[in-house]
Amino acid sequence: MTTVVNKTAHEFDKQRLEALLSRRFFYAPAFEIYGGVAGLYDYGPPGSALQANIINEWRRHFIIEEGMHELDTTIMTPAPVFETSGHVARFADWMVKDTKTGDVLRADHLVKNVLEARLKGDLEARGQAAAPVKVDEKAKKKKKEVATTVKQLPDETVAEYEKILAQLDNYSGPDLGQLCRTHDLRNPDTGNEVGEPQLFNLMFASSIGPTGQHPGFLRPETAQGHFLNFSRLLEFNNNRIPFASAQIGRSFRNEISPRAGLLRVREFTMAEIEHFVDPLDKRHPRFKEVRDIKLGFLSATVQAEGKTNLSFITIGEAVDQQIVANETLGYFVARIYLFLVKIGIDPKRLRFRQHMANEMAHYATDCWDAEIHNSTGWTECVGCADRAAYDLTVHSNRTGHPLVVRQALSEPIITEREVPEFDKKAIGKTFGKDTGTVQKVVAELCQEDLVALKEALAKDEAQISRPDGSKIHIPSSVLKIERKTIKQNIREFTPNVIEPSFGLGRILYMLLEHNYWSRAQDVERGVLSFPPLVAPTKCLVVPLSAREEFEPLTAEVSSKLRKAGVFSRVDDSSVSIGKRYARNDELGTPFGVTIDFASLKNRTITLRERDTTDQLIGSVDEVIEVVTELVLGSLTWEGASKRLAKYEGVQDVE
Amino acid sequence: MTTVVNKTAHEFDKQRLEALLSRRFFYAPAFEIYGGVAGLYDYGPPGSALQANIINEWRRHFIIEEGMHELDTTIMTPAPVFETSGHVARFADWMVKDTKTGDVLRADHLVKNVLEARLKGDLEARGQAAAPVKVDEKAKKKKKEVATTVKQLPDETVAEYEKILAQLDNYSGPDLGQLCRTHDLRNPDTGNEVGEPQLFNLMFASSIGPTGQHPGFLRPETAQGHFLNFSRLLEFNNNRIPFASAQIGRSFRNEISPRAGLLRVREFTMAEIEHFVDPLDKRHPRFKEVRDIKLGFLSATVQAEGKTNLSFITIGEAVDQQIVANETLGYFVARIYLFLVKIGIDPKRLRFRQHMANEMAHYATDCWDAEIHNSTGWTECVGCADRAAYDLTVHSNRTGHPLVVRQALSEPIITEREVPEFDKKAIGKTFGKDTGTVQKVVAELCQEDLVALKEALAKDEAQISRPDGSKIHIPSSVLKIERKTIKQNIREFTPNVIEPSFGLGRILYMLLEHNYWSRAQDVERGVLSFPPLVAPTKCLVVPLSAREEFEPLTAEVSSKLRKAGVFSRVDDSSVSIGKRYARNDELGTPFGVTIDFASLKNRTITLRERDTTDQLIGSVDEVIEVVTELVLGSLTWEGASKRLAKYEGVQDVE
Repeated sequence: MTTVVNKTAHEFDKQRLEALLSRRFFYAPAFEIYGGVAGLYDYGPPGSALQANIINEWRRHFIIEEGMHELDTTIMTPAPVFETSGHVARFADWMVKDTKTGDVLRADHLVKNVLEARLKGDLEARGQAAAPVKVDEKAKKKKKEVATTVKQLPDETVAEYEKILAQLDNYSGPDLGQLCRTHDLRNPDTGNEVGEPQLFNLMFASSIGPTGQHPGFLRPETAQGHFLNFSRLLEFNNNRIPFASAQIGRSFRNEISPRAGLLRVREFTMAEIEHFVDPLDKRHPRFKEVRDIKLGFLSATVQAEGKTNLSFITIGEAVDQQIVANETLGYFVARIYLFLVKIGIDPKRLRFRQHMANEMAHYATDCWDAEIHNSTGWTECVGCADRAAYDLTVHSNRTGHPLVVRQALSEPIITEREVPEFDKKAIGKTFGKDTGTVQKVVAELCQEDLVALKEALAKDEAQISRPDGSKIHIPSSVLKIERKTIKQNIREFTPNVIEPSFGLGRILYMLLEHNYWSRAQDVERGVLSFPPLVAPTKCLVVPLSAREEFEPLTAEVSSKLRKAGVFSRVDDSSVSIGKRYARNDELGTPFGVTIDFASLKNRTITLRERDTTDQLIGSVDEVIEVVTELVLGSLTWEGASKRLAKYEGVQDVE
Repeated sequence: MTTVVNKTAHEFDKQRLEALLSRRFFYAPAFEIYGGVAGLYDYGPPGSALQANIINEWRRHFIIEEGMHELDTTIMTPAPVFETSGHVARFADWMVKDTKTGDVLRADHLVKNVLEARLKGDLEARGQAAAPVKVDEKAKKKKKEVATTVKQLPDETVAEYEKILAQLDNYSGPDLGQLCRTHDLRNPDTGNEVGEPQLFNLMFASSIGPTGQHPGFLRPETAQGHFLNFSRLLEFNNNRIPFASAQIGRSFRNEISPRAGLLRVREFTMAEIEHFVDPLDKRHPRFKEVRDIKLGFLSATVQAEGKTNLSFITIGEAVDQQIVANETLGYFVARIYLFLVKIGIDPKRLRFRQHMANEMAHYATDCWDAEIHNSTGWTECVGCADRAAYDLTVHSNRTGHPLVVRQALSEPIITEREVPEFDKKAIGKTFGKDTGTVQKVVAELCQEDLVALKEALAKDEAQISRPDGSKIHIPSSVLKIERKTIKQNIREFTPNVIEPSFGLGRILYMLLEHNYWSRAQDVERGVLSFPPLVAPTKCLVVPLSAREEFEPLTAEVSSKLRKAGVFSRVDDSSVSIGKRYARNDELGTPFGVTIDFASLKNRTITLRERDTTDQLIGSVDEVIEVVTELVLGSLTWEGASKRLAKYEGVQDVE
């Protein structure tokens, strides 16, 4: 029997988690010794390894499993691309300025923070406040917090605030300005009023080349790189559709006033898929594999009613009931869910929320966000948008380069049509400067009008109108209209795009929150219970001390683990084994092997599991075999306990 | 017996290679449908996969094998960081402007191109010209080539040009300007004269945040991210030294006039190691593992003589003879060599060239480049620099944050020293506004001067000078100087940094050139002979046709390959099997299995090797086992030929 672990003995404590993340260098503010820059973070060794493992699994789950085509396109982008895509005009947030200090705030965040603080004060006044949320003491010292004034509000005001918050993403800039005036919302840092909301474009601007004549932007998404290469991708896919391209890379958004750690940053790694699909057929061949997966949905309709309750139904039902628009969108929603749960996100804290009309990006026709619950509420971590034919169409129009699919029709479409034909030699002489007008008008006639014109020609009564209304007579000698059989062998169309887009930094932060807990006997002993799949280090190798006699066996164990593909680290620092294990619990290392004097005598080593702290013992080769299977996921700890003897030696938790 | 392949039947043809790379979408000019931007390229599916495989092997060879600490730091960097690092002042190239058109050229490239063209014209005039190099016809049409005027030069002019070219990297801007005037070097595109060389900073500038008050740059190297996090890294490494951090990421250089494909780009992925080492001990514990590796060295001394001949000696000899400065630098030179050869670089086309004094980056004290030979000559692909304590020192001075190692001394250092001590109560009254001056002067005295001052105090003759030269008398009542025994338990020092820095795009391009050849029977049948380790796809699965009856076995083979960890792709397009294999020879896919009617009947499949086009046959499971070992590198094709029967069916090369 393995030990049962109580992971909820202590309430979640964000401050302790953040201290751990800083102490173990998961990540830290970039340029910290220069005072830092808001919204820029560096990942240290465990954070980098965690991110690399998430990316590896993403590549396996999406690119390899689904046979996607990977791309790596540039970040620096000439301005015309984002002019066409609409980002120069519309990729912007509303900001407000403090009327006295000139400090800049994001308008919707201001509304949210102030209203939430007032609601919290109301709850406290009514004596209903939940246990106070612990606040980062350091942050508190650095800046004024949003003050929580304990003051009861009229019931109708509470209802009004709640309604505003439920549809916050739906307000335009002028709406937000109106809210600030109506409800006297001020800069919480200073108490000053704020000005009218203004648009601020979120792209970082630069200039390409030595002459300064070529403005450029850092991409705010990787997607445009896929669209611009569409023709090459289609050819690479043997001109067949559907197919998907995928890209993992850095993007940039010059956020107005980022303050939410990894949740709102100015530079981030994203993973994006652009799935190109026939607009007339958005079925997905593998939808049947996922249709019974049950998820929590929050539709736009429900939100518009000011509500946030979830429907728990299967993705099959959601598509059948047209809550989710089509199978392909639904397939990706389900695959996103499976990916997030596999890497360690708590499925009970995951929901899919549909965008409301005003909230939608300018290029999207429908969008479902995978939102993950955390200490700040629900946060968008994956967007799954139907961009329809928007991007391919605008780039094609701007460049004149057709971004279309041409499909041979298995059966040609045969139609009979009236076809007008001018006598090319006579037309100029007959109509003089009216020639262009005549050709244009005739070319634009519908079938019905062509039939009428044909009859008029037969009677020599055919005429058309100039733009000013005056008539031009058309003699039957210059125009023939004949009924012809037309055979169409090719269908040409612009594909639609379904885009799952992952913010990897946000997902990484959610993993940290969902996997953090403290041991029941001591709140200071934090543990990060990552699944072995994503854990930065899979196995710790702990010799009793750094003494020379342990070196050969330590080297042998490390080398055998490396050959078995298990990423391990040796910790032979001079602190106690218990302290070294505690450090690695904080790093989320799932397994550890100890080399002591008994190991030298008997060639046995002990194997420790992070969450239970249970230890097993076996020969070097047995233990390495078991660890390898544990890391691969083909063996559980319970299974391992049946293969190796329980070790009853010294407990590592002192 | 496996077939012997003649890979040199056709001369290397750059134009054919480039056509192949474009056709198979290894990479393409970014924003191609917008007309492209010089120096920006997108990688398509095979290029992305090749790059990802190079990165994976880099991570294994360096980070995992050497236990390095990986980092992922931001690209966007506030200006003060690069002011301190010296990049704002010195990270620049010399550019010249065409005096009539205003076109901008890099000064050293202009000198190189014009002199090389004249030397080529001279060779032709002397009737010694080698077979003319094939020129990209498309590029030829787009712009004027550097004109090769067939004209014999005086022997001394030839010698002078050759000497200039050998030390081209050593010239300053004014030198380059002088060369242009002396030798009448003009813009080869227009024939116009050029102006005086001016410095152009190569960093892309931007601005962080909505107020425009925070200038920033895109990093031109990942290194600063390592240095700024040094204290956290040191702590993560249990405060021990030496250790190395490593980072793979995007960097940017706003090149003046990039024209050399992947060899000179404005945005690139690099992999950098910063190895922090004790300046008093640059030995490396694993140097003995590499000391017998023989390499081609080109030292600064040899280049200064205007020569380029290599010394082939072992890395051990190079360090012993002080050609390479120390073991750690030498160890990395050898590890770089092993890495490059492992991924498929031809060792005969690899040399290590030392930087000359003027060529060295402002932060380096010594630098060896791994240069790889290709159709444009020798190109730097990896730099291996000793940055000494430069970066840590300047950042520490600027920020006041100590970036040092503090080591407990096993035996304390005991010294006797004269120690001055003021009477704190009396000092202010005694010296008034001179107090600060007196304290500062005394604090800065050396031991010898302190002894003299002590003697003067005893005679009441002690005095020091004000900055203006006037004297201040020091009474013995306010200052005591005593001999004390000082015990020093801690040694504090700034580590030195050895930096191997890899340009992954250049290495990728070299791999393409070194592994490209055409089949003897048909120059149009190009092959890319990547080692399986880095090949974009390891195994092609080719059903005879897309007919439904082949689907189950195709799916089974794919699924079994995936489970065995072999990345495969199915090609069931409607062209012949021979054409499909030819396409995959161009993609560099080393193995292919064919599923035909015999497969359905007997459950046998054939296995094809790319270079020899030899085919073997066996049961599905046997073949999958063999392919897996071939891809892992634990089995050669010759070994495979002994395990499976030779297949004598249809040859795929038509």
